[in-house]
Amino acid sequence: MDPDAVSKAFVEHYYSAFDANRSGLANLYQDGSMLTFEGQKIQGFQNIVAKLTSFPFSQCKHTITPVDRQPSGPAGGMLVFVSGTFQLAGEQHALKFSQMFHLMPTQQGSFYVLNDIFRLNYA
Amino acid sequence: MDPDAVSKAFVEHYYSAFDANRSGLANLYQDGSMLTFEGQKIQGFQNIVAKLTSFPFSQCKHTITPVDRQPSGPAGGMLVFVSGTFQLAGEQHALKFSQMFHLMPTQQGSFYVLNDIFRLNYA
Repeated sequence: MDPDAVSKAFVEHYYSAFDANRSGLANLYQDGSMLTFEGQKIQGFQNIVAKLTSFPFSQCKHTITPVDRQPSGPAGGMLVFVSGTFQLAGEQHALKFSQMFHLMPTQQGSFYVLNDIFRLNYA
Repeated sequence: MDPDAVSKAFVEHYYSAFDANRSGLANLYQDGSMLTFEGQKIQGFQNIVAKLTSFPFSQCKHTITPVDRQPSGPAGGMLVFVSGTFQLAGEQHALKFSQMFHLMPTQQGSFYVLNDIFRLNYA
Protein backbone atom coordinates (compact mmCIF):
# COMPACT_ATOMS: atom_id res chain seq x y z
CA MET A 1 0.00 0.00 0.00
CA ASP A 2 1.21 3.50 -0.81
CA PRO A 3 2.85 4.96 2.33
CA ASP A 4 1.51 8.45 1.65
CA ALA A 5 -2.02 7.01 1.50
CA VAL A 6 -1.42 5.11 4.76
CA SER A 7 -0.21 8.17 6.61
CA LYS A 8 -3.04 10.31 5.24
CA ALA A 9 -5.65 7.69 6.18
CA PHE A 10 -4.14 7.33 9.64
CA VAL A 11 -4.20 11.08 10.29
CA GLU A 12 -7.80 11.40 9.09
CA HIS A 13 -8.89 8.45 11.19
CA TYR A 14 -7.02 9.58 14.29
CA TYR A 15 -8.31 13.14 14.42
CA SER A 16 -11.87 12.34 13.41
CA ALA A 17 -11.99 9.71 16.19
CA PHE A 18 -10.40 12.20 18.60
CA ASP A 19 -12.93 14.87 17.72
CA ALA A 20 -16.01 12.66 17.95
CA ASN A 21 -15.31 9.81 20.39
CA ARG A 22 -11.87 9.58 21.96
CA SER A 23 -12.43 6.10 23.39
CA GLY A 24 -12.38 4.94 19.76
CA LEU A 25 -8.62 5.60 19.74
CA ALA A 26 -8.01 2.58 22.02
CA ASN A 27 -7.37 0.12 19.22
CA LEU A 28 -4.58 2.27 17.79
CA TYR A 29 -2.33 1.68 20.81
CA GLN A 30 -0.76 -1.44 22.30
CA ASP A 31 0.90 -2.37 25.60
CA GLY A 32 4.27 -1.01 24.53
CA SER A 33 2.89 2.26 23.22
CA MET A 34 4.16 5.54 24.64
CA LEU A 35 2.52 8.95 24.77
CA THR A 36 4.28 12.12 25.84
CA PHE A 37 1.57 14.76 26.27
CA GLU A 38 2.87 18.24 27.05
CA GLY A 39 5.84 16.60 28.74
CA GLN A 40 3.84 14.03 30.73
CA LYS A 41 4.98 10.48 29.97
CA ILE A 42 2.32 7.77 29.74
CA GLN A 43 2.87 4.14 28.78
CA GLY A 44 0.54 1.35 27.66
CA PHE A 45 -2.73 1.57 25.79
CA GLN A 46 -4.91 1.52 28.91
CA ASN A 47 -3.10 4.46 30.51
CA ILE A 48 -2.99 6.32 27.20
CA VAL A 49 -6.71 5.93 26.58
CA ALA A 50 -7.42 6.90 30.19
CA LYS A 51 -5.43 10.08 29.58
CA LEU A 52 -7.07 10.86 26.25
CA THR A 53 -10.57 10.35 27.62
CA SER A 54 -9.84 12.40 30.77
CA PHE A 55 -9.83 15.77 29.05
CA PRO A 56 -12.71 17.95 30.26
CA PHE A 57 -14.39 18.33 26.88
CA SER A 58 -16.36 15.93 24.78
CA GLN A 59 -15.97 17.44 21.36
CA CYS A 60 -13.40 19.45 19.50
CA LYS A 61 -12.37 20.10 15.93
CA HIS A 62 -8.86 19.51 14.59
CA THR A 63 -7.63 21.18 11.44
CA ILE A 64 -4.45 19.63 10.09
CA THR A 65 -2.17 21.60 7.83
CA PRO A 66 0.97 19.73 6.82
CA VAL A 67 1.47 15.98 7.21
CA ASP A 68 5.05 14.77 6.71
CA ARG A 69 6.02 11.12 6.55
CA GLN A 70 9.26 9.14 6.53
CA PRO A 71 10.06 5.43 6.85
CA SER A 72 11.69 4.83 10.23
CA GLY A 73 13.98 1.92 9.48
CA PRO A 74 14.13 -1.77 8.63
CA ALA A 75 11.26 -2.78 10.97
CA GLY A 76 8.73 -1.23 8.56
CA GLY A 77 7.73 1.64 10.78
CA MET A 78 6.57 5.05 9.63
CA LEU A 79 7.06 8.45 11.22
CA VAL A 80 4.19 10.89 10.77
CA PHE A 81 4.62 14.54 11.72
CA VAL A 82 1.57 16.77 11.95
CA SER A 83 0.92 20.42 12.66
CA GLY A 84 -2.44 22.08 12.95
CA THR A 85 -5.00 23.63 15.24
CA PHE A 86 -7.80 22.40 17.40
CA GLN A 87 -10.83 24.23 18.65
CA LEU A 88 -12.98 23.21 21.58
CA ALA A 89 -16.75 23.30 21.19
CA GLY A 90 -17.98 26.74 22.25
CA GLU A 91 -14.51 28.33 22.14
CA GLN A 92 -13.75 31.08 19.68
CA HIS A 93 -10.02 30.64 19.42
CA ALA A 94 -8.14 27.63 18.12
CA LEU A 95 -4.97 26.30 19.75
CA LYS A 96 -1.94 25.40 17.66
CA PHE A 97 -0.15 22.13 18.15
CA SER A 98 2.46 19.79 16.69
CA GLN A 99 2.36 16.03 17.09
CA MET A 100 4.41 13.11 15.91
CA PHE A 101 3.47 9.45 15.62
CA HIS A 102 5.66 6.42 15.08
CA LEU A 103 3.48 3.79 13.43
CA MET A 104 4.60 0.17 13.48
CA PRO A 105 3.13 -2.68 11.44
CA THR A 106 0.91 -5.20 13.19
CA GLN A 107 0.81 -8.93 12.38
CA GLN A 108 -2.62 -8.31 10.85
CA GLY A 109 -1.14 -6.02 8.20
CA SER A 110 -2.28 -2.81 9.84
CA PHE A 111 -0.41 -0.28 11.98
CA TYR A 112 -0.39 0.68 15.63
CA VAL A 113 1.02 3.74 17.39
CA LEU A 114 4.29 2.90 19.15
CA ASN A 115 5.26 6.53 19.83
CA ASP A 116 3.07 9.61 20.20
CA ILE A 117 4.44 13.02 21.23
CA PHE A 118 2.15 16.05 21.50
CA ARG A 119 3.00 19.68 22.15
CA LEU A 120 0.98 22.87 22.05
CA ASN A 121 2.66 25.67 20.12
CA TYR A 122 2.21 28.70 22.29
CA ALA A 123 2.01 32.10 20.61
CA MET B 1 24.37 6.37 29.16
CA ASP B 2 21.26 8.12 30.40
CA PRO B 3 18.89 8.64 27.45
CA ASP B 4 17.75 12.04 28.73
CA ALA B 5 21.36 13.16 28.83
CA VAL B 6 21.94 11.82 25.31
CA SER B 7 18.96 13.66 23.87
CA LYS B 8 19.86 16.86 25.69
CA ALA B 9 23.47 16.67 24.51
CA PHE B 10 22.35 15.96 20.96
CA VAL B 11 19.98 18.94 20.90
CA GLU B 12 22.61 21.28 22.33
CA HIS B 13 25.22 20.06 19.86
CA TYR B 14 22.89 20.19 16.87
CA TYR B 15 21.61 23.72 17.36
CA SER B 16 24.91 25.23 18.42
CA ALA B 17 26.51 23.74 15.28
CA PHE B 18 23.56 24.96 13.21
CA ASP B 19 23.86 28.47 14.61
CA ALA B 20 27.62 28.80 14.23
CA ASN B 21 28.76 26.57 11.34
CA ARG B 22 26.18 24.44 9.57
CA SER B 23 28.76 22.40 7.64
CA GLY B 24 29.66 20.94 11.04
CA LEU B 25 26.37 19.04 10.96
CA ALA B 26 27.68 16.71 8.22
CA ASN B 27 28.91 14.02 10.59
CA LEU B 28 25.47 13.65 12.19
CA TYR B 29 23.94 12.22 8.99
CA GLN B 30 24.64 9.09 6.95
CA ASP B 31 23.79 7.83 3.47
CA GLY B 32 20.38 6.53 4.54
CA SER B 33 19.44 9.70 6.41
CA MET B 34 16.29 11.60 5.44
CA LEU B 35 15.38 15.24 5.92
CA THR B 36 11.94 16.67 5.22
CA PHE B 37 12.32 20.44 5.35
CA GLU B 38 9.06 22.37 5.04
CA GLY B 39 7.74 19.48 2.97
CA GLN B 40 10.80 19.14 0.73
CA LYS B 41 12.23 15.60 0.87
CA ILE B 42 16.01 15.23 0.82
CA GLN B 43 17.95 11.98 1.22
CA GLY B 44 21.57 11.19 2.02
CA PHE B 45 24.07 13.15 4.07
CA GLN B 46 25.60 14.95 1.10
CA ASN B 47 22.25 16.28 -0.12
CA ILE B 48 21.16 17.12 3.41
CA VAL B 49 24.30 19.09 4.16
CA ALA B 50 24.03 20.82 0.77
CA LYS B 51 20.50 21.88 1.77
CA LEU B 52 21.46 23.00 5.26
CA THR B 53 24.39 25.04 4.00
CA SER B 54 22.35 26.60 1.18
CA PHE B 55 20.30 28.89 3.40
CA PRO B 56 21.04 32.56 2.69
CA PHE B 57 22.27 33.41 6.16
CA SER B 58 25.44 32.55 7.98
CA GLN B 59 24.35 32.89 11.57
CA CYS B 60 21.21 32.49 13.57
CA LYS B 61 20.20 31.79 17.13
CA HIS B 62 17.96 28.92 18.19
CA THR B 63 16.12 28.92 21.48
CA ILE B 64 14.74 25.52 22.42
CA THR B 65 11.85 25.24 24.81
CA PRO B 66 10.66 21.66 25.34
CA VAL B 67 12.66 18.57 24.37
CA ASP B 68 10.70 15.30 24.47
CA ARG B 69 12.27 11.89 24.04
CA GLN B 70 11.06 8.32 23.58
CA PRO B 71 12.79 5.07 22.65
CA SER B 72 11.73 4.10 19.12
CA GLY B 73 11.86 0.31 19.30
CA PRO B 74 14.16 -2.70 19.56
CA ALA B 75 16.86 -1.27 17.26
CA GLY B 76 17.94 1.12 20.02
CA GLY B 77 16.76 4.29 18.32
CA MET B 78 15.57 7.42 20.04
CA LEU B 79 12.93 9.92 18.98
CA VAL B 80 13.61 13.53 19.92
CA PHE B 81 10.90 16.15 19.52
CA VAL B 82 11.83 19.81 19.79
CA SER B 83 9.94 23.09 19.69
CA GLY B 84 11.47 26.53 19.81
CA THR B 85 12.32 29.69 17.95
CA PHE B 86 15.15 30.86 15.76
CA GLN B 87 16.24 34.34 14.97
CA LEU B 88 18.38 35.38 12.05
CA ALA B 89 21.24 37.81 12.65
CA GLY B 90 19.93 41.35 12.17
CA GLU B 91 16.26 40.33 12.33
CA GLN B 92 14.06 41.55 15.14
CA HIS B 93 11.49 38.78 15.12
CA ALA B 94 12.03 35.12 15.86
CA LEU B 95 10.37 32.35 13.87
CA LYS B 96 8.71 29.44 15.63
CA PHE B 97 9.39 25.89 14.57
CA SER B 98 8.95 22.24 15.53
CA GLN B 99 11.41 19.52 14.57
CA MET B 100 11.76 15.83 15.18
CA PHE B 101 14.82 13.63 14.97
CA HIS B 102 15.10 9.86 14.94
CA LEU B 103 18.55 9.01 16.27
CA MET B 104 19.98 5.57 15.60
CA PRO B 105 23.04 4.03 17.27
CA THR B 106 26.25 3.81 15.27
CA GLN B 107 28.73 0.94 15.52
CA GLN B 108 31.06 3.36 17.30
CA GLY B 109 28.63 3.75 20.19
CA SER B 110 27.37 7.13 19.13
CA PHE B 111 24.18 8.18 17.29
CA TYR B 112 23.38 9.46 13.83
CA VAL B 113 20.24 11.13 12.49
CA LEU B 114 18.17 8.68 10.45
CA ASN B 115 15.06 10.91 10.27
CA ASP B 116 14.78 14.69 10.50
CA ILE B 117 11.50 16.55 9.92
CA PHE B 118 11.33 20.33 10.23
CA ARG B 119 8.32 22.64 10.07
CA LEU B 120 7.86 26.32 10.76
CA ASN B 121 4.88 27.09 13.00
CA TYR B 122 3.18 29.99 11.35
CA ALA B 123 1.27 32.43 13.52
